[in-house]
Amino acid sequence: MDEQAKKTALRMIPYGLYVLGTRSDDAIGAAAINWLTQASFEPPLVAMGVKTDGDTLKQLQADGGFALSILGTGQKDIAFAFFKPTDQDGQTVNGYAFETKETGAPILVDAPAWVEGRVTDVVERGDHAVVVGEVIDAGVRRETTALTLAECGVNYGG
Amino acid sequence: MDEQAKKTALRMIPYGLYVLGTRSDDAIGAAAINWLTQASFEPPLVAMGVKTDGDTLKQLQADGGFALSILGTGQKDIAFAFFKPTDQDGQTVNGYAFETKETGAPILVDAPAWVEGRVTDVVERGDHAVVVGEVIDAGVRRETTALTLAECGVNYGG
Repeated sequence: MDEQAKKTALRMIPYGLYVLGTRSDDAIGAAAINWLTQASFEPPLVAMGVKTDGDTLKQLQADGGFALSILGTGQKDIAFAFFKPTDQDGQTVNGYAFETKETGAPILVDAPAWVEGRVTDVVERGDHAVVVGEVIDAGVRRETTALTLAECGVNYGG
Repeated sequence: MDEQAKKTALRMIPYGLYVLGTRSDDAIGAAAINWLTQASFEPPLVAMGVKTDGDTLKQLQADGGFALSILGTGQKDIAFAFFKPTDQDGQTVNGYAFETKETGAPILVDAPAWVEGRVTDVVERGDHAVVVGEVIDAGVRRETTALTLAECGVNYGG
């Protein structure tokens, strides 16, 4: 395989940016991800790529609940704050206020929209697991377009 | 769940457009999809949502090979041609020339880039299956940005 062609081709896939909120009995997690797609209308499913070597996948597998804060255009700084390890301080995480709803996973209050869900299936085959989850709740605070990886000037793929 | 919020939130996810090529012993398939994400670097995996009621999923499950023709900006007409059933005529499919490589699945010669892969896992839980596949080959004919669902002025999600 032509490795450069693989990288160039896969990097053509457009991505938004999301803060994936997770929880365990004694901690929350919040990490930026971009490998996300809807995967069914009924039931409403999403599929996402989650690193196998971090706490995020552990929490997803142990608890099952998750929240996706969908970032809007202009929110690059928020995305970048969640490339770092989770640092909770009361009702803020990595410097941003969060709230919790049904699953207990953190939802950023600054995100224009969010969905909550529960993990249904995990395919562990590579350096990221394919996590499939059913959307069980959603909210929209303001309608806008999504922050994209292109707007952030970074790549994560290839 | 607020159904309208779910729809609005999920429709914020940005998508490209791809022609998913499949094959069986006696036929090829080619269908436009947008629910696609990379899902691992090593091995290079992609995950895609594929309708459970069509020939595409049957061919993917029977043969395992697939090709993704990644459409470029300006190629809306090509995308729309593949919302229709597969109609092969010699070396064209739905009016567009194709070639085949390792898997035998059709690759559009007009697509700026493509990847070929083999199915590794299928999660059947909704009206679309989550099909996970390993990328085994790729090619780039010209570097450009991807055609997006937004450019096409349509939604498929929510």
